[in-house]
Amino acid sequence: MRVLVSGGGGFIGSHLVDRLLLRDDCTELLVVDNFWTGRRSNLSHITDKRVRILETDVERLADVGLFDEIYHLASPASPPWYMEEPLRTVRANVIGVLRLLEALRPNGLIGFTSTSEVYGDPLVSPQPESYRGSVDCTGPRSSYDESKRCSEAILFESRRVSGTQIKVVRLFNVFGPRTRPDDGRAVSNFISQALRGKPITVYGNGLQTRSWGYVDDIIDGLARFFWLQPTDYPGPLNVGNDREISVIDVARYVQSRFPKTPIVHLPPAPQDPTNRRPDLTIANRELPGWACQVPYEEGIDRAIAWFSKNEELRSASHDDVAAEFRKSALHM
Amino acid sequence: MRVLVSGGGGFIGSHLVDRLLLRDDCTELLVVDNFWTGRRSNLSHITDKRVRILETDVERLADVGLFDEIYHLASPASPPWYMEEPLRTVRANVIGVLRLLEALRPNGLIGFTSTSEVYGDPLVSPQPESYRGSVDCTGPRSSYDESKRCSEAILFESRRVSGTQIKVVRLFNVFGPRTRPDDGRAVSNFISQALRGKPITVYGNGLQTRSWGYVDDIIDGLARFFWLQPTDYPGPLNVGNDREISVIDVARYVQSRFPKTPIVHLPPAPQDPTNRRPDLTIANRELPGWACQVPYEEGIDRAIAWFSKNEELRSASHDDVAAEFRKSALHM
Repeated sequence: MRVLVSGGGGFIGSHLVDRLLLRDDCTELLVVDNFWTGRRSNLSHITDKRVRILETDVERLADVGLFDEIYHLASPASPPWYMEEPLRTVRANVIGVLRLLEALRPNGLIGFTSTSEVYGDPLVSPQPESYRGSVDCTGPRSSYDESKRCSEAILFESRRVSGTQIKVVRLFNVFGPRTRPDDGRAVSNFISQALRGKPITVYGNGLQTRSWGYVDDIIDGLARFFWLQPTDYPGPLNVGNDREISVIDVARYVQSRFPKTPIVHLPPAPQDPTNRRPDLTIANRELPGWACQVPYEEGIDRAIAWFSKNEELRSASHDDVAAEFRKSALHM
Repeated sequence: MRVLVSGGGGFIGSHLVDRLLLRDDCTELLVVDNFWTGRRSNLSHITDKRVRILETDVERLADVGLFDEIYHLASPASPPWYMEEPLRTVRANVIGVLRLLEALRPNGLIGFTSTSEVYGDPLVSPQPESYRGSVDCTGPRSSYDESKRCSEAILFESRRVSGTQIKVVRLFNVFGPRTRPDDGRAVSNFISQALRGKPITVYGNGLQTRSWGYVDDIIDGLARFFWLQPTDYPGPLNVGNDREISVIDVARYVQSRFPKTPIVHLPPAPQDPTNRRPDLTIANRELPGWACQVPYEEGIDRAIAWFSKNEELRSASHDDVAAEFRKSALHM
């Protein structure tokens, strides 16, 4: 069984690689990553001989033969990163999925991590998979949102005309170990700021809500959907935590762990969705027994513990560069 | 002034080429077309030495130098065509626009014909450009709708990060001479059926509405927006006729010209939008003096006259093949 994971050096991708290596039927695992937002350190613990790491843009993937299972996770996922290089983001997702379809063995399975961002700034809550979304296809988040939507279209249309076996998940916010300290999203921002004794910065009033899933729970959902559960359902499938928490509440929780840290407010990020919460009806049907198990507070504590051990965080200069670029990207 | 038109052999593209040739400042006009849905006969009247025709997929365009103006029209636009080859449709639009951006001279202008299909099955009427749409990104029309949305995202994000000069229009339904007889959409279907003494086939009850713009009026709108009018507005700009007419009314009007022709109803086309009408507020502001001038009835009469002279229509076998394939594509 030859398996390929694009973006396997990333936050979620590297956890998926770990999980795939628990499978005996996986004889070869090719990790494809250009280490743009992924990091080699996310894979440095792996000694398994089945793993090969290929450093390349997925959309430029050379001939690597055919695979039985392909998981396409290659994409930046945080606004400052994709807003900095929007065309590259589109290429990774859209041309990436077209390239990977060519590397799929007949009757092989291609799994894709789409995103709750396909719902944009949703007008219904919680969001069922049937909700068509409210995305500004000309806006500053469009490279990510629209390339994920277009990649879904490619997969579902490939299934319709060619019978391709697909599994498409829509991930809601995920947090936990291996998030980049300069990722730029709330949980990792707040923790890395607090750890360095800097103020916690909240974009806007912080009343925007998200549904944060701890990475172990999310990977468990992916594993069940992609290979453990005998389901023919192609997706789209919401995978996330349906406990909705405001950004300011996250900031306050992190602050409770670092009591001297102030919270400061910055101008709102452009077109920041006001709310986000998965309708898990289909997940409950397709993945019986699956649910997010790690309470949010415990997840934050675990993330703090991981970030505390992360040497990189002590490099203020690195973080300042990242902060500068976040600022320029977000506050147009 | 070097100008490139992708899809210049198509229905709208070839009319745009004719219009561009009226400009003295256009010294070279490269038509890029793979003649998938475009036709060489649409260009056979052109003797102008400035025109060069390059038969290639736009996404595989070889090095042709840099251009001052590029107009990207290459895409099938009719459901049976794009539903037959959805991945090729995505490639033409998305990889096409990425490729064309590389062929744009610094400070050059790229114009893109997007579509009212970015609104999907709209929940507001008329549709202003700010309406975010109701598109099923997993549905049988998604290859077209989502690749147009994604191409818009690419252009607006290219403008944001690189200052690229862009002009994006969203075309509503267009009809008139040079439509393929086997295009598969209402007006051309009805006329070609009636001309051959066959029943007029209406998908569903025919109460779905469209806004049909006669091609001369639409090309006039494009010319004004793309080069005649001194506007920095990048779009998106609705260009269409805001007179909303039901499909059954079109069928009846064509029937009034061919009184013995029956109208028969077929099952509805999948995810056929129920309504479509442009809000022209921005068009009225940006293109003062422009409006659709040709009354719909006169446009139909002109289209009938053109189709009557078109020899291809008399080839029943050709049409039957097209009808078969329309049926298989539309009635899943």
